[in-house]
Amino acid sequence: MTNSSDYVPPKVWTWDKGGAASPVTSHNRPVAGATHVKELPVGRHPLQLYSLGTPNGQKVTILLEELLELGYAGAEYDAWLIRINEGGQFGTGFVDVNPNSKIPALVDRSDAETIRVFESGAILMYLAEKFGAFLPQEASQRAECLSWLFWQMGSAPYLGGGFGHFYAYAPVKIKYAIDRFTMETKRLLDVLDRRLADNTFVVGTEYTIADMAIWPWYGGLIQGRLYDATEFLSVRDYQHVRRWADTIGERSAVIRGRIVNRTSGELSEQLHERHSATDFDLMTQDKRPARGE
Amino acid sequence: MTNSSDYVPPKVWTWDKGGAASPVTSHNRPVAGATHVKELPVGRHPLQLYSLGTPNGQKVTILLEELLELGYAGAEYDAWLIRINEGGQFGTGFVDVNPNSKIPALVDRSDAETIRVFESGAILMYLAEKFGAFLPQEASQRAECLSWLFWQMGSAPYLGGGFGHFYAYAPVKIKYAIDRFTMETKRLLDVLDRRLADNTFVVGTEYTIADMAIWPWYGGLIQGRLYDATEFLSVRDYQHVRRWADTIGERSAVIRGRIVNRTSGELSEQLHERHSATDFDLMTQDKRPARGE
Repeated sequence: MTNSSDYVPPKVWTWDKGGAASPVTSHNRPVAGATHVKELPVGRHPLQLYSLGTPNGQKVTILLEELLELGYAGAEYDAWLIRINEGGQFGTGFVDVNPNSKIPALVDRSDAETIRVFESGAILMYLAEKFGAFLPQEASQRAECLSWLFWQMGSAPYLGGGFGHFYAYAPVKIKYAIDRFTMETKRLLDVLDRRLADNTFVVGTEYTIADMAIWPWYGGLIQGRLYDATEFLSVRDYQHVRRWADTIGERSAVIRGRIVNRTSGELSEQLHERHSATDFDLMTQDKRPARGE
Repeated sequence: MTNSSDYVPPKVWTWDKGGAASPVTSHNRPVAGATHVKELPVGRHPLQLYSLGTPNGQKVTILLEELLELGYAGAEYDAWLIRINEGGQFGTGFVDVNPNSKIPALVDRSDAETIRVFESGAILMYLAEKFGAFLPQEASQRAECLSWLFWQMGSAPYLGGGFGHFYAYAPVKIKYAIDRFTMETKRLLDVLDRRLADNTFVVGTEYTIADMAIWPWYGGLIQGRLYDATEFLSVRDYQHVRRWADTIGERSAVIRGRIVNRTSGELSEQLHERHSATDFDLMTQDKRPARGE
């Protein structure tokens, strides 16, 4: 490991594919595009979701389950597992749906024209507009919903790619980077805590896609599902976030949406693929194999 | 500087307000909220923008100038300068508009109810919906616009808070962090380059808020306005981004929007505040003082 204070960047950065010594995993690359030919599976429902049960994936499955709970039959979906640790996001089929090679990605086959949507925030907006639900119509409430939705999208990289990476995943602990991203993560938690001190949900009294976007990340930190950092971050200081996170976490649609496409945690909380509402009923303590596995 | 490989994080993170030795500037804090009482100024137009001419600020002023260019008189705006290096984002008035204390923030006084919007992406969506412009109505084009808009919002923290910070601003050069964020920045540039190889604009043939969101960041990198990194990133490899960036950079609305609220660069490219279309005509080679300065 180079001592930080000695390092002088080169004139031109080049890719050091140094294998084990490389500071990044083998699936990080400085180029885009597919690495192999692989078609995506297609199920029988209008909506085809290609995802993984990370916080960004959970946002979408929570919204879909909420829509189904409200009775929107058009929200029926097949959720297919993309194993990002095995490079599933670099197959030709996936790259066609999301050229950025990140989960989640959605294909809507409801109408004659097949529509692709990528980025979790875009998928939430797309589905909320399509079904006319969980996105306020009244101007000021809608503006508030957009503001907090984008706040989540712009801040999650500091929580995940910043704090989570340097605190939990990086092969070496770098004090400067941990301090930088911890400070920002605590500030963001405090922004949310102050908001929720006076409001039941993020936008006000109405539960919206802003809550669904924020809950998997901030709720995950507070409830201890992410990075094992509750003590480090002193999450008990954020009591309003805790109250809100607990309330949302008890919703039946959230309980279902949280486990779709999950491959980590308790086996009872892993539903690798979802093709029908009855898939949840069939779950046992044993891990259910994904179709095709 | 602690040698990276020696560092063990504490059980509980605490704020080291170490002054000059602190790894972060004095304006970064682990808590939210206002630090001082200060009302925001209000001008005569329906839209009041509180911002700074950074890439995130430029997105909004570019859209407003494009709307005015199209003849939407309701898009007339007062653009007030928020000096983030002096803590302007922590005044009570600003925090009331954006509890996250980041520029840009917008107040819409067009109707009886005053509406606040924060986060650049939310402001773009809000204005595009309000005026019915630069956001496609057709379903697949709209989905594509949302996807790329959110792609920009989710990726900019890797360019700015990641690459820009560790390459250009951090007090010490940390190889691991520079490698991590450089690799991701080059990958993102390649994602965009491949998209623009086959499309005039990001969504296709139509110029949208997705272009306006992406241009200040990715165009800034390519055209050398950000971080002095054109050689380091080998930006000449991204010829399609270059073509697109140059095309957009020549639009008169973009030329105007790019300099509103700017306080850096050539003096001829700084219009600290904007209250009228004629403010641009009055610009000279001399720096124009902001009102109230």
